[in-house]
Amino acid sequence: MEHDLIAALATPFASGALAVIRTSGDRCIESLALLTDRPDAIAAIPGGRIKRATVIDPDSGLAVDEVVIAVFRGPHSYTGEDVAEISCHGSVPGIRRILDILFRNGFRPADPGEFTQRAFLAGKIDLTRAEAVQEIVSSQTAVGHEMALRRLGGSIEATVRGITDDLVQIMARVAIQLDYPEEETGEIPIDPKTVAAARARLSALAGSYRTGRLYQEGVSVAIAGQTNAGKSSLFNAFLKEDRAIVSDIHGTTRDYISSRVDFRGIPVEIYDTAGLRETSETIEEEGIRRTRTVVRGTDVVVYLVDGTTGMTAEDDQILAELGWDGDGPTSTASRLIPVWNKIDVPGCKEPPPVSGGSPFSRVSATTMEGVDALVERIVAEIGPVQPERSGAPVIDSLRQKNLLERAVVALDDVATGLAAGMPVDAISVDLQEALHALGEIIGEVTSEDVLDAVFSGFCVGK
Amino acid sequence: MEHDLIAALATPFASGALAVIRTSGDRCIESLALLTDRPDAIAAIPGGRIKRATVIDPDSGLAVDEVVIAVFRGPHSYTGEDVAEISCHGSVPGIRRILDILFRNGFRPADPGEFTQRAFLAGKIDLTRAEAVQEIVSSQTAVGHEMALRRLGGSIEATVRGITDDLVQIMARVAIQLDYPEEETGEIPIDPKTVAAARARLSALAGSYRTGRLYQEGVSVAIAGQTNAGKSSLFNAFLKEDRAIVSDIHGTTRDYISSRVDFRGIPVEIYDTAGLRETSETIEEEGIRRTRTVVRGTDVVVYLVDGTTGMTAEDDQILAELGWDGDGPTSTASRLIPVWNKIDVPGCKEPPPVSGGSPFSRVSATTMEGVDALVERIVAEIGPVQPERSGAPVIDSLRQKNLLERAVVALDDVATGLAAGMPVDAISVDLQEALHALGEIIGEVTSEDVLDAVFSGFCVGK
Repeated sequence: MEHDLIAALATPFASGALAVIRTSGDRCIESLALLTDRPDAIAAIPGGRIKRATVIDPDSGLAVDEVVIAVFRGPHSYTGEDVAEISCHGSVPGIRRILDILFRNGFRPADPGEFTQRAFLAGKIDLTRAEAVQEIVSSQTAVGHEMALRRLGGSIEATVRGITDDLVQIMARVAIQLDYPEEETGEIPIDPKTVAAARARLSALAGSYRTGRLYQEGVSVAIAGQTNAGKSSLFNAFLKEDRAIVSDIHGTTRDYISSRVDFRGIPVEIYDTAGLRETSETIEEEGIRRTRTVVRGTDVVVYLVDGTTGMTAEDDQILAELGWDGDGPTSTASRLIPVWNKIDVPGCKEPPPVSGGSPFSRVSATTMEGVDALVERIVAEIGPVQPERSGAPVIDSLRQKNLLERAVVALDDVATGLAAGMPVDAISVDLQEALHALGEIIGEVTSEDVLDAVFSGFCVGK
Repeated sequence: MEHDLIAALATPFASGALAVIRTSGDRCIESLALLTDRPDAIAAIPGGRIKRATVIDPDSGLAVDEVVIAVFRGPHSYTGEDVAEISCHGSVPGIRRILDILFRNGFRPADPGEFTQRAFLAGKIDLTRAEAVQEIVSSQTAVGHEMALRRLGGSIEATVRGITDDLVQIMARVAIQLDYPEEETGEIPIDPKTVAAARARLSALAGSYRTGRLYQEGVSVAIAGQTNAGKSSLFNAFLKEDRAIVSDIHGTTRDYISSRVDFRGIPVEIYDTAGLRETSETIEEEGIRRTRTVVRGTDVVVYLVDGTTGMTAEDDQILAELGWDGDGPTSTASRLIPVWNKIDVPGCKEPPPVSGGSPFSRVSATTMEGVDALVERIVAEIGPVQPERSGAPVIDSLRQKNLLERAVVALDDVATGLAAGMPVDAISVDLQEALHALGEIIGEVTSEDVLDAVFSGFCVGK
């Protein structure tokens, strides 16, 4: 375990009122103090205190910035080591100059996630909480943020440790029986109910991965339809409907406009295919080709029909292409939502009857009528009807999911072994395997490769 | 003077390891404490201390983030009021949620520059130092940053106060003579030498504005020339030559590629006109049209000639267009630097002789030969030969420049009045005017309009 001096900008590298440079390591505060105008005072700051100082370039003797230094003394710090955080003016060349001075004077640039990695190595947090740190940073909606925060609070760790305890108790009884076979009671020391209960909880947790991903990564929704169906109007209506737009329209990329919105806590990237450029192909060919391209890349397609003209031959053809045979959606078209637009216009036609109930959502992108219900329908199509706010732990880590599934498989083997009357020592191998997987989840059993994989996805300064 | 509760994100609004939300105002710490899991402990934090806390949404009772709160008690704070800085996870929805809770619970969004404005109103800093705060944030190179830092240190304030003191002493003697005319000695109480010295210092300071702007705003340099003259190679050579590139190439905009580089501390935006698209116009027409467009918008044009082919008729025509008549640069062509490229290629010709010395810079954009000297030539063309590191104060505020010039004009009037033997009370009006202008510079004489104008240009959170 190394405690060499690391430093990194912890705030985004852009100009702003403030920037924070984080440092950690053995004698971190004393080393930083030497780069200020008041080395003795800074070196003596007790933990939990803040002091103003001027950063001085020791080579030139020049003042580089007026800063505030916050000191945390190990082990009462994020990393468990001595930590100093430098709040400087949020100036790009200023940040660069301070980092440059640090790197010329004993500090090295921190690797991605290295502060959190040190916190884990110091035993301050388990691996699921370490992962939650980055999941918080990369969350895109309030719901995703809340789920990650619960993980940071230790909800995954608590669940995994609880199940581990149950399995360890079984293992203890198994060990006694294996060590003192003379005391054999004929009773199998493995309670199948406990194993089944553990398996069910692990399986539910593994299954929460889909929900976790949904709220963290989100989905893509394309708005397709013919020219004048009102695609851009619906695009703008969706932006209006979202009360907490995650980002502004981020420009035209690859022939379409897209924007990130927040639909009931799910980050949704909406693509407006209206921006596609016209070619010399016939309208029908072109329309189908476009829609195909869009469908291939997105999770949900909202297909817009102009209600004032009604279904055209082209609409029929494209919808058939998408797997909608005119008598309701076919199985392959589960991601298609047909929408009847312009219902506010006098003389707007009725959508065609569809056997098994009309699949058309009726909206007016102009008056916003029906848009809220359409958003609900999209959410129902892509995710749970109710956003996951029950407080049950939800995972967002593929690593955790794979390990949970490994534990489930091992417990299945335990159950099979029990049913088949296999010897206890054979069954205990599978129990051991389940415990090993659980230990890896929280990081009690780990390897350098695993840690590298976990922390390399972090942002620097975390 | 108001001390209501304000809050703003002080770090860039993007995801990162950390974000800092700044709050200030009367009972700021107590108000914030109510939004945490440990209101009593947070409310009681002494100034200069840091404590961990969980932000709680009082409406839902939900935990919103685990944060660190740094407390500064007025008057020992940036604003002179109680200040609390919340370091939270750098998550976009997390930042949004905390700000939302603050704004629902007694805090209002801070106006741009409002923290610094409060510092000024509390008498913590004068107006030149307040302006320097934003000048630091917006600086683009290390030299620009250093100059702004000296201003923050009070270099402008000290200069202006020094001159003010001299003028106030004169005014005091004038006042005595006007109050006690019976003691009139026949001596004029205004020393022309003191006035002349003050005028010279103010004039020099006003004149430093050009330097200040140069290092803060920078200049634009276009690389022009015919196809195959090596424009893109020189563009890349400039990027290589810059040891501290300020930003990456920021994409193609309006038909050209540009990149920000740092030439001897001066931020330089370089435009590579090679990206211009071909049209059906003739090469000559097109070349001249392009070059004209570029010249109109940039401070310096580097015109590149392919030394292996030598001057072509098109080169002659374009250079003549740019005001270079083939016998050396004409007066209107001071911003044109002709460059002879590809000197590393065997058989490369010599640039044509020009009366009064060859104005061509000889370079190889491939081997970098001559590129450093070309950068020096560009710097000499646009700015002082030596970067301004003498330590003399340099201003970067048009407001300060205008007021300095007003003071200079007033002191000129004083000198004229003295020379013309005008009565002392008439001359004192001009002295008063000079003092008023100096008072406005440091903010001792000010109006709400002036403050609004100064601080509205700030970033929020500063």
